[in-house]
Amino acid sequence: MAPFLNRRDLSFQLFEVLPTADLTSRPRFAEHSREVYEDVLNLAYSVAERYFANHAREADLSEPHVVEGKVVLPAAMRDAVRAFRDAGFFSAHHDEDLGGLQLPWVVMQAVQANFQAANVSTSGYPFLTIGNANLQRVFASPEQQGRYMLPLLEGRWFGTMALSEPHAGSGLADITTTATPRGDGTYALTGTKMWISGGEHELSENIVHLVLARIAGGPAGVKGISLFLVPRYRVNDDGTPGADNHVVLAGLNHKMGYRGTTNTLLNFGEGGETIGELVGEPGRGLAQMFHMMNEARIGVGMGAVMLGTAGYMESLAYARERRQGRHASQKDPAAPPVAIIEHADVRRLLLRQKVFVEGGLALGLYASLLVDDTQTGPEEGRTDAGLLLDLLTPIVKSWPSKYSQEALSDAIQVMGGAGYTRDFNVEMYYRDNRLNPIHEGTEGIQGNDLLGRKLTQAGGRGLTVLLAYMQADLDASEGQGGLDEIRAALRQAIGWTTQALGALLPRAAELGPDLFLANANSALEMLGHTVVGWMWLRQAATAARALPTARADADFYHGKLHAARFFATHELPKVRAHAELLASADRTTLDMHSEWF
Amino acid sequence: MAPFLNRRDLSFQLFEVLPTADLTSRPRFAEHSREVYEDVLNLAYSVAERYFANHAREADLSEPHVVEGKVVLPAAMRDAVRAFRDAGFFSAHHDEDLGGLQLPWVVMQAVQANFQAANVSTSGYPFLTIGNANLQRVFASPEQQGRYMLPLLEGRWFGTMALSEPHAGSGLADITTTATPRGDGTYALTGTKMWISGGEHELSENIVHLVLARIAGGPAGVKGISLFLVPRYRVNDDGTPGADNHVVLAGLNHKMGYRGTTNTLLNFGEGGETIGELVGEPGRGLAQMFHMMNEARIGVGMGAVMLGTAGYMESLAYARERRQGRHASQKDPAAPPVAIIEHADVRRLLLRQKVFVEGGLALGLYASLLVDDTQTGPEEGRTDAGLLLDLLTPIVKSWPSKYSQEALSDAIQVMGGAGYTRDFNVEMYYRDNRLNPIHEGTEGIQGNDLLGRKLTQAGGRGLTVLLAYMQADLDASEGQGGLDEIRAALRQAIGWTTQALGALLPRAAELGPDLFLANANSALEMLGHTVVGWMWLRQAATAARALPTARADADFYHGKLHAARFFATHELPKVRAHAELLASADRTTLDMHSEWF
Repeated sequence: MAPFLNRRDLSFQLFEVLPTADLTSRPRFAEHSREVYEDVLNLAYSVAERYFANHAREADLSEPHVVEGKVVLPAAMRDAVRAFRDAGFFSAHHDEDLGGLQLPWVVMQAVQANFQAANVSTSGYPFLTIGNANLQRVFASPEQQGRYMLPLLEGRWFGTMALSEPHAGSGLADITTTATPRGDGTYALTGTKMWISGGEHELSENIVHLVLARIAGGPAGVKGISLFLVPRYRVNDDGTPGADNHVVLAGLNHKMGYRGTTNTLLNFGEGGETIGELVGEPGRGLAQMFHMMNEARIGVGMGAVMLGTAGYMESLAYARERRQGRHASQKDPAAPPVAIIEHADVRRLLLRQKVFVEGGLALGLYASLLVDDTQTGPEEGRTDAGLLLDLLTPIVKSWPSKYSQEALSDAIQVMGGAGYTRDFNVEMYYRDNRLNPIHEGTEGIQGNDLLGRKLTQAGGRGLTVLLAYMQADLDASEGQGGLDEIRAALRQAIGWTTQALGALLPRAAELGPDLFLANANSALEMLGHTVVGWMWLRQAATAARALPTARADADFYHGKLHAARFFATHELPKVRAHAELLASADRTTLDMHSEWF
Repeated sequence: MAPFLNRRDLSFQLFEVLPTADLTSRPRFAEHSREVYEDVLNLAYSVAERYFANHAREADLSEPHVVEGKVVLPAAMRDAVRAFRDAGFFSAHHDEDLGGLQLPWVVMQAVQANFQAANVSTSGYPFLTIGNANLQRVFASPEQQGRYMLPLLEGRWFGTMALSEPHAGSGLADITTTATPRGDGTYALTGTKMWISGGEHELSENIVHLVLARIAGGPAGVKGISLFLVPRYRVNDDGTPGADNHVVLAGLNHKMGYRGTTNTLLNFGEGGETIGELVGEPGRGLAQMFHMMNEARIGVGMGAVMLGTAGYMESLAYARERRQGRHASQKDPAAPPVAIIEHADVRRLLLRQKVFVEGGLALGLYASLLVDDTQTGPEEGRTDAGLLLDLLTPIVKSWPSKYSQEALSDAIQVMGGAGYTRDFNVEMYYRDNRLNPIHEGTEGIQGNDLLGRKLTQAGGRGLTVLLAYMQADLDASEGQGGLDEIRAALRQAIGWTTQALGALLPRAAELGPDLFLANANSALEMLGHTVVGWMWLRQAATAARALPTARADADFYHGKLHAARFFATHELPKVRAHAELLASADRTTLDMHSEWF
């Protein structure tokens, strides 16, 4: 079996491109070292290989189903989450006094990357749990943390996020689930939640739902939305799971991919009271959810990167083995067929995969390190780090979701008919990843977030920082050999981008919100490709510096340099069409009438 | 349920954009009229709706499997192929004295479109049969036609094309299946064929395989490949199926989509002799197959168009029903949510689908009419029609295969989580259509065919004809209101295209075949978008002419005009990057080393 990720690349990104090893100069990470991080990543790979990759296909084929009221999942999943727990990964980034290792978030994200690549469905359960606990860590009271968070950190209970409802998917402002005060400080919840991943299963002793609901009598819209902790089983005074809390599984969704992660329709308050606890202030539910959204969206982007990576690895191994056809210049039919990796178009398909998934990985880890910078970085840089992170987040979420899908399509294409069958995994990854442009905010929502909020907030400071950092890397690489083409292409893309934004942003008021946002998707595409072009310059510059003294790694560094050239010649020129459309404030989509379709 | 195609658009394409009704001036079609064609299309829709659409999902879920040596398929498939036969569609384009209606191929293709949209898997069986019979009609002897073709025309027996082998998918030059003369003019075939659609089933009394094989002792490469008729059951003197011919089902492939069409691994000559008959001359097997390839490849392209169409129809109906969110300019949270078709980004996703699938349909039918022109058109135009058809064929095959997949991804995106579940069909269409860029020649093969053969054959006459026809339509629409944007964008795209080809084509010898073909995919993209832009100009010009007197159809024509504008503003500018890459004879893919990945 092909490896599901390139372990060498993970270290390259973390320790050569990014200054992850330097984090140890921060007090929180003082006990760490690069070796510690490498060991943790090696452990993650081996647990992921042994306990997650082993049943990835089984999790796809044995779709969750209900037998006698219980959700049935492959038995291997139980072993997997136990191994994940035994390795300490549920709490690895938390404080030592909570049982954690105080791992930086960027390393934690790299740990998770192993599991996403090995088996995205089974990974869903622990990752939702980690996200749930992270939110509690910031907003829940100490008592709540003791009751609901600690069991998550110990991996005994699992968590979910319950936001959407059948009539309100992307439109969370319209949720109607209601929380009625019970007089003792707790609330009785009634309503229905849809698309709840991990909403029901028997993998853990209890399930803690983070639920958005309206306190009865509150205001309409987002201001009336509060956040509640709602356990599947009520919690006894000694902290053990007690009576049923009447969160009822009303149905399982049958998905194209990501099948091993149960996805549920849940009724609250059916057959009895569903009791929940308010988290933080009333009316702050959505804001609290969004505070955590950066991490969740980076998680989705990284999940996409890793699915794309697993597909790239599989199709690359296949292309090296499979012999078929000859070079166009070879006219002798008796000459033996060549490995298909020799064909220019197969190389193109592999290079596309490489630039999409390694570019996405560079971006996802860059953003993850920004999360660390906002929390443990030098005080004076935290605001800028936060604004840059805010700006990049819609890109980190969307770009890999889209371009890993392209990469996975290319992986199938490299493998031809074989890639279209269940004999290999690429068709499964392709089905799995198609969810990523949808959940945690659709691509449309990300575009609106980028153009309508992130590019203009704090006086456009995020964009200023981004442009300055890109320029700094351009300046730093000036005169470095082998980078001319890459630098020129990136400069050009930045030029188109700044021109387009310079033309559009000042016209926001004049155009009005509908027209201003009409081509938000082009903003996402334009900035996405430009930012990933920057990520490729950073990788190429790192590789060019390392190459003169590299021995065994020379091929690896050559590959980085050449992939950057490919991104410069084949991808960055595409920025122009998006930039020109955006600059023109094109009205075509707005002017279309519904009846004309 | 949403309709699976837009019947109005089918008539628009055939009878308003294309001069299909004028075919009746040709002797072969003298008995026909537009009304006859419309009736046939209505019949096709109703048979497709009643007998094919009814079990499309069942065909997906009840994957073919083997019970006691027999392939089990949904019972509804038997009714479907019987209804198709009873309607006379197996032979509808054939001569009257063969039981046909002498339908033009363009109408036959439009008939088939209904079935492809309704249920692509079940349609596979009759369509392979039609293709097989078409090939026999040209190359098989009269005796062979009587024995093997007539039962296909009657829909009693079904057909396949057996080209690939486990070690030779795209590389047909390396097939090893062997045909040994038996001394009586027949051959004994031994070997293994892979990816044979419809290779085994119980839907018909017999199965006729068209098999590529090497006559023992023949030359290596394509010159040694001959074509054989190989029945599943040998044929008795009275024409009935007789003894088993030892074509043994060695395995069924388990595919991501297109599941209802069995896809098989077949062993020839296992447990007894497999007897076959040579078709035409020895050594002409691949050439004969390629003679029919235009039709097969148009069929694949049209299948892609219709899958995209079915997805577009479903997501459009959903977008009109589903209410979610508000316009960006609406600040009142108590205002009711709007239908999602009101959102600019949903419109963009629907417009993309519309331009991809209706542009693809226009192209597929245009090419189908060229097939008629080569057969029944004015003698003096047949050579040009054939060269233009040759040139367009790789585009007709590839462009919809790729862009219907984009459209189907957009259909899923419009429907969000719902589109990712089996509650709707879009996820199935998305899985089904992913096959289309692979079979009947991969996208890579189409690119090489376009750039390496079709653009240069006959001194580049095909391209000359194409450019002249595009220019003629540009000239004819000069001054027509509402077309300025579309005409300007097309002119620009043609300019980039001619510039790129002008720079590259004369350098073929200097660059050598490997570098000349290195960016063949960009040629496919560049010409594909340009040609579809031309198809949109033709549709827009037709709509603009019809609009002043249109009543009930006004919305339809407005939609055509606006979609053409969308293609002009959002899609045609993408031609430039491909043209520039092509013109530069970029070496990036060639210069990548295999070890660098």
